[in-house]
Amino acid sequence: MTKNRIENNDLVLICHRDKKYLKRVEEGKAFNGKGGTLSFSELVGNPFGKRYSGYEVYRPTLEDIIMFGVKRDTQIIYPKDAAFICMKMDIKYGSYLLEVGTGSGALTIMLSSFIGPEGRIVTIEKEERHFRNAKKNIERFCQNKNVEVINCHVSEYSGSGFDAVFVDVREPWLYTDNIWGFAKESGLIGMIVPTTNQISEILRAFDTHGGFGDTEVVEILLRRYKTVSERIRPFDRMVAHTGYLIFTRKLLDPTSPVPATA
Amino acid sequence: MTKNRIENNDLVLICHRDKKYLKRVEEGKAFNGKGGTLSFSELVGNPFGKRYSGYEVYRPTLEDIIMFGVKRDTQIIYPKDAAFICMKMDIKYGSYLLEVGTGSGALTIMLSSFIGPEGRIVTIEKEERHFRNAKKNIERFCQNKNVEVINCHVSEYSGSGFDAVFVDVREPWLYTDNIWGFAKESGLIGMIVPTTNQISEILRAFDTHGGFGDTEVVEILLRRYKTVSERIRPFDRMVAHTGYLIFTRKLLDPTSPVPATA
Amino acid sequence: MTKNRIENNDLVLICHRDKKYLKRVEEGKAFNGKGGTLSFSELVGNPFGKRYSGYEVYRPTLEDIIMFGVKRDTQIIYPKDAAFICMKMDIKYGSYLLEVGTGSGALTIMLSSFIGPEGRIVTIEKEERHFRNAKKNIERFCQNKNVEVINCHVSEYSGSGFDAVFVDVREPWLYTDNIWGFAKESGLIGMIVPTTNQISEILRAFDTHGGFGDTEVVEILLRRYKTVSERIRPFDRMVAHTGYLIFTRKLLDPTSPVPATA
Amino acid sequence: MTKNRIENNDLVLICHRDKKYLKRVEEGKAFNGKGGTLSFSELVGNPFGKRYSGYEVYRPTLEDIIMFGVKRDTQIIYPKDAAFICMKMDIKYGSYLLEVGTGSGALTIMLSSFIGPEGRIVTIEKEERHFRNAKKNIERFCQNKNVEVINCHVSEYSGSGFDAVFVDVREPWLYTDNIWGFAKESGLIGMIVPTTNQISEILRAFDTHGGFGDTEVVEILLRRYKTVSERIRPFDRMVAHTGYLIFTRKLLDPTSPVPATA
Repeated sequence: MTKNRIENNDLVLICHRDKKYLKRVEEGKAFNGKGGTLSFSELVGNPFGKRYSGYEVYRPTLEDIIMFGVKRDTQIIYPKDAAFICMKMDIKYGSYLLEVGTGSGALTIMLSSFIGPEGRIVTIEKEERHFRNAKKNIERFCQNKNVEVINCHVSEYSGSGFDAVFVDVREPWLYTDNIWGFAKESGLIGMIVPTTNQISEILRAFDTHGGFGDTEVVEILLRRYKTVSERIRPFDRMVAHTGYLIFTRKLLDPTSPVPATA
Repeated sequence: MTKNRIENNDLVLICHRDKKYLKRVEEGKAFNGKGGTLSFSELVGNPFGKRYSGYEVYRPTLEDIIMFGVKRDTQIIYPKDAAFICMKMDIKYGSYLLEVGTGSGALTIMLSSFIGPEGRIVTIEKEERHFRNAKKNIERFCQNKNVEVINCHVSEYSGSGFDAVFVDVREPWLYTDNIWGFAKESGLIGMIVPTTNQISEILRAFDTHGGFGDTEVVEILLRRYKTVSERIRPFDRMVAHTGYLIFTRKLLDPTSPVPATA
Repeated sequence: MTKNRIENNDLVLICHRDKKYLKRVEEGKAFNGKGGTLSFSELVGNPFGKRYSGYEVYRPTLEDIIMFGVKRDTQIIYPKDAAFICMKMDIKYGSYLLEVGTGSGALTIMLSSFIGPEGRIVTIEKEERHFRNAKKNIERFCQNKNVEVINCHVSEYSGSGFDAVFVDVREPWLYTDNIWGFAKESGLIGMIVPTTNQISEILRAFDTHGGFGDTEVVEILLRRYKTVSERIRPFDRMVAHTGYLIFTRKLLDPTSPVPATA
Repeated sequence: MTKNRIENNDLVLICHRDKKYLKRVEEGKAFNGKGGTLSFSELVGNPFGKRYSGYEVYRPTLEDIIMFGVKRDTQIIYPKDAAFICMKMDIKYGSYLLEVGTGSGALTIMLSSFIGPEGRIVTIEKEERHFRNAKKNIERFCQNKNVEVINCHVSEYSGSGFDAVFVDVREPWLYTDNIWGFAKESGLIGMIVPTTNQISEILRAFDTHGGFGDTEVVEILLRRYKTVSERIRPFDRMVAHTGYLIFTRKLLDPTSPVPATA
């Protein structure tokens, strides 16, 4: 159960019209935004979900944290995609997950929250710079201690038996053998890529390998509407593309369409 | 941790090309589908994620269960929307949730899975017919015993302190006071409605009430692609509309813009 | 037949990477853009569709003129919508058209081009400021002398017998009688509005009037892709909304569903 | 100017609720549809745009003719795409056009209508079966005698100087030289293909050739709404994909990025 009163050091979401700020309460200090100055001492001991000095102050959600808190040094997986990925990969209380390509750790943080204290995620990232940044984000924002971040290349990692494996690297088709090996039987595998050329490469690699089934390729579009009751209409502009999502399931006894030569 | 071997009485997802079937394994019996006959005794003791007699047999995901298992006597909330709702309502291990309008229980089952054994959902449904059907679906498909289904009208229910409240009824604007009362401070509130006229009514009710903030209206579009590597293209037809999603947060000290008359 | 050589005083489309400029050739002068200086004397007597001093210079299309030439003092009807409107309103060589709400004249210019010298458009605009601006745009960019621009309110205009009537005003539902009167038998009627509340009002007015049939409400979404052969993907952002388009046809003998009281 | 009274042998659009029929009036005969029997003698001498025996009878538009009249033995170019193509290719009164791949002639009929009696289209189709079918459709539905249909392969055709060239064949990238040759200087070129792999091939061929500029790739999505004023919402399902549209312009002095070897 989450608590109702704001305490020193809590994260808060501060809203003023369309502006949102994720801040950590530091008693004695103040926040300055478009709506003027807000002294943090006004908040401490008082409830979330209330107007304070021209701002609305809320308990932040995971989405708020990902959008306004996570420090990005890569393109993050957006909440609209992350939510769909969690559903397709059947993430639940207690899942055992592998993430290949931690990036900034945005998806990691969402996965960590859904699987709870009994679940476990291993996330690997080959770039040391991204690894360091993601590690900080995860330490800062994951409530459960269920994440292991490893700085290694996909080809160096040798874990196996994962319920689900999510892959966010540039050329996933080079690692189909590795990915197949990571997943348990009937394990769920997901990928995100920005271009259709990459979809082609991945599907070709799946065909060649023979150990993947029930493959799907989708994209998720999110359209926002203005919230004026007498003038309902979509916003003028929208995010038109984040990435194509590919989902498949591990099949045992891969049947390579091209038989091995004698 | 999920297990790897199929046992008698397990749910299995049986696939043949584009056809999918969710079945319960009954040793001694057989399944007949587009790909011919599959004897269940062929499965028992053998792994999920394998080809059997021309079928692929997988461990079903929650999405499979919702799409192919849940008995519908109402329009269900589709997985694309359910996933987004879970994210926006900050569902996590241990959440305490209220669902107003159980319908067939599809969303309930997904929520139940995400919140785990430490979480709790109360779901209320006024129609006795829907209540009975949902109760069966929930008993059949929820692994965690964290759901309480109640057959009552929203105006009769008096719980409070919920982390999040999801409302799927025809005229949610009639119950803004009740909904406001159900949620805890800064509690997350979501709604789904099929028409824009309903969006208008809801926004108007929020304006009048004054105790809701950070309101958003969105829709989620899912576009599927064919999985032939040399011919990447969207499917010819798609689901163009399921519902508009409305999200808001509870604000204390509602400031009614229209003062009470003397 | 259009000519091939650029002459003094011609309109030209000058492109440099993603930048486009619509300019009138003025011999002796020069154009300065992102790609450097281009002397107009370099163009005169030379062909359209050629690279000149780091720029590509093309014969402008109507779309180029609307997007880069028309001076806007209102929201214009975008080419994606204008094209669809022309098709739905069966615009062709020789059509006789009424436009209610000239705006900046962008749609007028496209209609004028499609109907040719034998066609005729009357376009009315109540705001004198818009009327003046549209008149200039039309004089500058319409090749055919088939447009009559009138500065009057829809309720003051009394023409009739139009093949098609397009209406772009804020409250078209107030003028259903007028609009019905303008169109010939089976005449095509189109409207554009930004909000769903306006769609409701219009449909309600059509129901009350009884003299409109085969009504359709649509929206057109245009999604652009990047043009790198090895990285096919949509642009990151898109125009998500311009307006809802409503089309209907005039029916004689309107049958009001609510009979007049005795 | 179109006429107002229905005559024997006229095409009429007959509507009953959501059903539409395109029929030729044959005095003495009758039409039988979902709304019962409609005798054609009831129509002759009476106006278009009127209710007759439970049906609404309208003067057909070009879109009606394409959707309900044209006999298809190929996938046609849908009106939403055809309208956009006409706009992008700057079709106007008097244009001189080439269409490569007549198909069933649906786009041809729309182009013929827009360019009027002073314009001219050449359309070539290599399959004799499609050629014959298209020729019949064009004879039946084009009001202007401005279309020449030729049964030949793109590589056999040698015309040139076209204002615009539209190409609807499977492998347009094999014919970039031909297509470049057909268009006049700064001529507009359009293509439609169903897959992203084809987009890649085309863009690669444009890069290699060097004689094409201002290339764009887009898709047009049409979303329809139900027309009940109190329940505004999109239809449940929509056409999600017809084709990707590619537009480019002819550039003189192609500069091949890879210089010819000595």
